[in-house]
Amino acid sequence: MTPTITAFAQSPDGGRGLARDMPVRWALEEAGQAYRVRFLSFPALKEPAHRALQPFGQIPTYQEGDLTLFESGAIVLHIAGRPGPLLPAEPNARARAVAWLFAALNTVEPPVFDRSLLQVFEREQPWYAQRLQMVDARIHARLDALAQRLGPADWLDGAFSAGDLMMVAVLRRLHASGILNAYPTLAAYVARGEARPAFRRAFDAQRAAFDAATRENTPPPPA
Amino acid sequence: MTPTITAFAQSPDGGRGLARDMPVRWALEEAGQAYRVRFLSFPALKEPAHRALQPFGQIPTYQEGDLTLFESGAIVLHIAGRPGPLLPAEPNARARAVAWLFAALNTVEPPVFDRSLLQVFEREQPWYAQRLQMVDARIHARLDALAQRLGPADWLDGAFSAGDLMMVAVLRRLHASGILNAYPTLAAYVARGEARPAFRRAFDAQRAAFDAATRENTPPPPA
Repeated sequence: MTPTITAFAQSPDGGRGLARDMPVRWALEEAGQAYRVRFLSFPALKEPAHRALQPFGQIPTYQEGDLTLFESGAIVLHIAGRPGPLLPAEPNARARAVAWLFAALNTVEPPVFDRSLLQVFEREQPWYAQRLQMVDARIHARLDALAQRLGPADWLDGAFSAGDLMMVAVLRRLHASGILNAYPTLAAYVARGEARPAFRRAFDAQRAAFDAATRENTPPPPA
Repeated sequence: MTPTITAFAQSPDGGRGLARDMPVRWALEEAGQAYRVRFLSFPALKEPAHRALQPFGQIPTYQEGDLTLFESGAIVLHIAGRPGPLLPAEPNARARAVAWLFAALNTVEPPVFDRSLLQVFEREQPWYAQRLQMVDARIHARLDALAQRLGPADWLDGAFSAGDLMMVAVLRRLHASGILNAYPTLAAYVARGEARPAFRRAFDAQRAAFDAATRENTPPPPA
């Protein structure tokens, strides 16, 4: 049964693969699982029909037969539950990979996401610069700890796992900030993730969707 | 093998059971699993010995034989993996319960936690009131959606699960704010969670630890 996910009809990230369909696409590609995408406009996200699938009116959702899931972390974990490269078979290593997935979403992402919110909603406020400094200090504390733990290794705990997938997806949000430049081992870690063929396929697919939507919404040039 | 978790030697929450050992204690109680607690001072949290277990220098950790885990979400999920009341046996219902656990930590908690950070770190700033209003608007958007989904039901998806456990643990952080007063069904949902015998045992255990630490650190009254 081919699963169907939802994604933004035209992602506000400008096709950079920073929306939450990206880790789900990436996980599906790592698992060798074909999928369909249903695209949703912003108004459609908030309608009852979508809220029946996603109570908070967000993307992505995941539908497969009778199962409807939301939350990118839960969807990636569900996909990773099948035999494949996303979770080790040994139970302890598996539990540790899951811990890194949670660390990505619940420990590293909050200040990273806060920075995005700040840039969108508080850029014109008199306190912007001061708040940016506070948020960046929280991000640096997380990245210092993460770089310390990663050390010279390729991945966070042995082989590449769903934990690395989610951590790379979260760290990618920092590309435009330049913050990763201060962490060469983390920048290399992100680059290793982005170099995986499954990442490339997922990235190209979301980019193609963004480009198609942009062409469709752009008036033709004057004759 | 009795697992050992870590907790604050003296929790900054004043014994209200808002630190992240609480959902882990609660899950252990629901699972009928005895456990030990190792208490850590704030300086000890940041030392290499603890960072070897918890890269970000936080509590809780979970140690059981050869397994060391961190991230309360991952620990609760690990505990919930055993047969018991925390996850349904049917695979689709199980995946949906996991989705609610992620929703608690990655969709509802961020603005709730942001409110706590704001109160600690920005209370003296000239922008405090304005920022509080912005954060509260984000919290209300989440609670509106959550209340809509919960409707008149007791729990989020059928029987009580690890998803409800984590959602209740997150919503409890709002007790002091009064925000839950605007959501009678969510307040009742939280109260249902808090009325579970396993919750009570977990709460009482963390409270007893807090009270003991407070007695120890309080100079005796003058004779």
